[in-house]
Amino acid sequence: MKRTHYAGLVTEAELGQTVTLQGWVNKRRDLGSLIFIDLRDREGIVQIVFDDSISKDMFEVAESLRSEYVITVEGEVILRDENLVNPQLKTGKIEVKATSLTIISKAETPPFAIDQNDDISDEVRLKHRYIDLRRPKIQSTLMMRHQITSAIRRFMDQDGFIDIETPVLNKSTPEGARDYLVPSRVHDGSFYALPQSPQMFKQLLMVSGFDKYYQIVKCFRDEDLRADRQPEFTQLDVEMSFVDEEDVMDFNERLLTYVMKEVKGLDIKTPFDRMTYDEAMAQYGIDKPDTRFGMTLQDLTDFAKTTDFKVFKETAENGGLVNAIVVKDSADQYSRKDIDKLTDFVKLYKAKGLAWMKVDEGQLTGPIAKFFDEAKQQKLLTQLDATHNDLLLFVADKKEVTQTSLGQLRNHIAKQLDLIDQEQFNFLWVTDWPLLEYDEETERYHAAHHPFTSPKDSDVELLQTAPEKAYAKAYDVVLNGFELGGGSIRIHDGKVQQQMFKALGFSDEERDAQFGFLIDAFKYGTPPHGGIALGLDRLVMLLSGRSNLRDTIAFPKTANASCLMTNAPSEVSAEQLEELGIQLEDRKEK
Amino acid sequence: MKRTHYAGLVTEAELGQTVTLQGWVNKRRDLGSLIFIDLRDREGIVQIVFDDSISKDMFEVAESLRSEYVITVEGEVILRDENLVNPQLKTGKIEVKATSLTIISKAETPPFAIDQNDDISDEVRLKHRYIDLRRPKIQSTLMMRHQITSAIRRFMDQDGFIDIETPVLNKSTPEGARDYLVPSRVHDGSFYALPQSPQMFKQLLMVSGFDKYYQIVKCFRDEDLRADRQPEFTQLDVEMSFVDEEDVMDFNERLLTYVMKEVKGLDIKTPFDRMTYDEAMAQYGIDKPDTRFGMTLQDLTDFAKTTDFKVFKETAENGGLVNAIVVKDSADQYSRKDIDKLTDFVKLYKAKGLAWMKVDEGQLTGPIAKFFDEAKQQKLLTQLDATHNDLLLFVADKKEVTQTSLGQLRNHIAKQLDLIDQEQFNFLWVTDWPLLEYDEETERYHAAHHPFTSPKDSDVELLQTAPEKAYAKAYDVVLNGFELGGGSIRIHDGKVQQQMFKALGFSDEERDAQFGFLIDAFKYGTPPHGGIALGLDRLVMLLSGRSNLRDTIAFPKTANASCLMTNAPSEVSAEQLEELGIQLEDRKEK
Repeated sequence: MKRTHYAGLVTEAELGQTVTLQGWVNKRRDLGSLIFIDLRDREGIVQIVFDDSISKDMFEVAESLRSEYVITVEGEVILRDENLVNPQLKTGKIEVKATSLTIISKAETPPFAIDQNDDISDEVRLKHRYIDLRRPKIQSTLMMRHQITSAIRRFMDQDGFIDIETPVLNKSTPEGARDYLVPSRVHDGSFYALPQSPQMFKQLLMVSGFDKYYQIVKCFRDEDLRADRQPEFTQLDVEMSFVDEEDVMDFNERLLTYVMKEVKGLDIKTPFDRMTYDEAMAQYGIDKPDTRFGMTLQDLTDFAKTTDFKVFKETAENGGLVNAIVVKDSADQYSRKDIDKLTDFVKLYKAKGLAWMKVDEGQLTGPIAKFFDEAKQQKLLTQLDATHNDLLLFVADKKEVTQTSLGQLRNHIAKQLDLIDQEQFNFLWVTDWPLLEYDEETERYHAAHHPFTSPKDSDVELLQTAPEKAYAKAYDVVLNGFELGGGSIRIHDGKVQQQMFKALGFSDEERDAQFGFLIDAFKYGTPPHGGIALGLDRLVMLLSGRSNLRDTIAFPKTANASCLMTNAPSEVSAEQLEELGIQLEDRKEK
Repeated sequence: MKRTHYAGLVTEAELGQTVTLQGWVNKRRDLGSLIFIDLRDREGIVQIVFDDSISKDMFEVAESLRSEYVITVEGEVILRDENLVNPQLKTGKIEVKATSLTIISKAETPPFAIDQNDDISDEVRLKHRYIDLRRPKIQSTLMMRHQITSAIRRFMDQDGFIDIETPVLNKSTPEGARDYLVPSRVHDGSFYALPQSPQMFKQLLMVSGFDKYYQIVKCFRDEDLRADRQPEFTQLDVEMSFVDEEDVMDFNERLLTYVMKEVKGLDIKTPFDRMTYDEAMAQYGIDKPDTRFGMTLQDLTDFAKTTDFKVFKETAENGGLVNAIVVKDSADQYSRKDIDKLTDFVKLYKAKGLAWMKVDEGQLTGPIAKFFDEAKQQKLLTQLDATHNDLLLFVADKKEVTQTSLGQLRNHIAKQLDLIDQEQFNFLWVTDWPLLEYDEETERYHAAHHPFTSPKDSDVELLQTAPEKAYAKAYDVVLNGFELGGGSIRIHDGKVQQQMFKALGFSDEERDAQFGFLIDAFKYGTPPHGGIALGLDRLVMLLSGRSNLRDTIAFPKTANASCLMTNAPSEVSAEQLEELGIQLEDRKEK
């Protein structure tokens, strides 16, 4: 017997029809002469009813059904009694009066119930991921993931982009994060590396004249994982020729508004808001501002110089930054103890301390209030636009520390006070990034994005004189405080590319060994080009309202990069290692 | 200046308009006061003309243009003189009279010319792949690849399939081909393996209730490469629940006819022809018959028993097979020397020899003709339907050898005599495969497809009694003599799956260590399911009329799995190996 409908899609439209359904028993309820089954498939749940119109044998089979049995049911679609209508279900107005029942597969009691929502440990969920994936919340997330990728592909195809696959078995380059390596069996002592991104390949496709490229592609980083990282992740990778920053940003806005409309039914206004990297840091203390709420950083450095409060005054006079955030109408919600916790929080971001005052009927209170006379207090209140019951929080420190610690505190308090409208989707461009950043550990400059990012036209000469001052043709797109993706216009002049590698401290030999083929390629007629990469897992997470990247991935890895279901990674045979010509160090004995 | 049109798409529709084009100089011709440029972009070529209406400076810039320079040209679209119309070009009726010219990037002379078609070594092409990819033939192949994947995705989405990504970092299993391994940095002595296919994951997705899954996915095999293999290849991977063989085959016919219509504009008749594996071997001597031509294998075993020709008679009487193919009207094209070469050919396939006769005016000629009296000759001619100038070729050997050698010879001769209509697309199902095949090397049974393939319902008991006699619910789809893909209905009963592993010689421990999670999963309510995987690279190769898989891949590997452009694989640093806890054996000194 063949299925005629998905269980979850049977509605009043099928009234009176005979349907054949196949799916899982979600629940069975016995009411004496009646048995009700909730039958589940990927589209949802429908109620099946067995009554005395079927044979005694079949009724007994129905009585034997247990959760997660797989069955075939044939029956007639009938209306439910009005008082039994379930408005929660798409199928809630009808039920299927069974005329035939077959058990396809029996089921043992699963390790956790499908409709159980909480208190299942991640470990149990991941070990039995095939059960976890039955849960409607995860299933709908993966179905939304499909809708998102499908919408992206439709848009890209219509917009003239060509989907081109780039290799997974690549060459290892020491730039960037740690590579996953793959030993070669054929080439003694050699290794492939899994791609961290197809960056050079997509640039070469521009050199080849493909003009507009895209790929939804797996990338890999062998990093110590945080809660929101996976060793393999998926990105929408895009590159375009003969374009400038505006072209790439415009394309990306059209893409994202299309996806938001198709998947969420929402109209997102364009152009997206924009701010420069320096503005983002000054106002939000972070390079990916969440603009769904205010409480921006206020600069009090000039004011601080005029005060007698030593911490402020000295910081301001020694080139540091004194900033504040104003937590509106919340002073009464923060006890000293609460504020001590906020102080501990900013210390995580290297701030030496957190100063605070409260506004009480136009007066400032708190331990440091005494350092500000009436005139200063009023000036401060005016500058901060602070009113009764506001909590003022100050950091006075080195520029980066002040901005970062207050920026993080701003996000922290917004969550604490539930200031964020979860229904809002705030897209934002952060532009004009510094080209380089200084890495204190290795004591050299690193590319802020990657070494192929073009400096601003006016900053090209700086590459040879003061590269740390150069700004880049780079842009990040931010959604609700998450970096959704980033890109840049690339260097397409071999000479400039060589200057860039020099600025990054590469010797000519290192450069040629690792990137020689790209510099070579640029000799043969290279169009200006640029692009962007969007994190698909994160986009799915934000659009589906999940808080964990893992829930957007069918078979994710744990924080230590293992699969609890298959037990990957695992030991392999001596023959396999022998063929690859590698030996294991006995590290445990060290 | 922004591009207004693709060069290759400017036609009479734009007559009189001012267009801005950006692309590569394909060719420059100077005719004194006129300079002609063929400007190339991904859509094709348009002719630009510079005359004395532009400034002397600009004319000089035009004179300096060389092949592969990247330029921006603005100009007016005008009609060509009627006698200068080029019907080969989409843009052949018009040209663009330049009003402005800017050089964006200069170009050195490339290692080979873009319009050069032959005598470029594969090595040079692959080393400078970014130049090779400019060649219109390769570019159109990759654009067709995009059309094919795009059409596949449209069909799958419309048909209710959900695109779900499965992991690349997996567990190594000794079944099947050799795995590519990835050492784990975190788990001492452990390795991931790159997937040979997402087989178990897609089955688990069925256990989870996703019902219809697809993915266009990279797979990996560390095998010694033949001309038509790549270490990484791409497949369309499909799995469906509550289906039987007919459902999967029907779906696949709808998909492939859709793709053929969308991409090639061709109507392919359905249902596709079908034959069983045994029929394919008997009639074509191969499991992937090319049905674009006849010349099928004729069974003469019974006839052979009645003859006095010892080789035939003894083979037939000892359980061997005597088969012939009839090469119609071609006896005069094969000298003894030519036939000696055919004999050498069948010996590659282990045949002891090749017997032959020619038909000359109703009489058989050739060295063995004398062993057949007049009556036998006429009987043979009748049975083979052979007429004047036919060449008859015979193999008498063990069944497999006779079939395989003559099957290969059949394909060989068809190419030699150009018997194949290259415009034809013959799709074919080969069904009813044996479940197991005996591997002489390891002296045990292997799964003919993979260990998850279901036996035919009637053969389930054979698993425990005579597994070698069981047939499988397996099907391959063949196009023009190439295996395009294969699939099966899977085992969905844990007990049957355990019997299968037993038949394959697995101990319970081996089975549980490698496949325990799948057998576990089957305990919790498993729907019947099945699917198919299609080789995308091969599909592109056949539809684009290429003869090499490499030309369907943007950045392919050589036969020894290296990338000549990036020099992957390569040596990595001692620090990288140290972090992974592996050491290299010095194999060269062995």
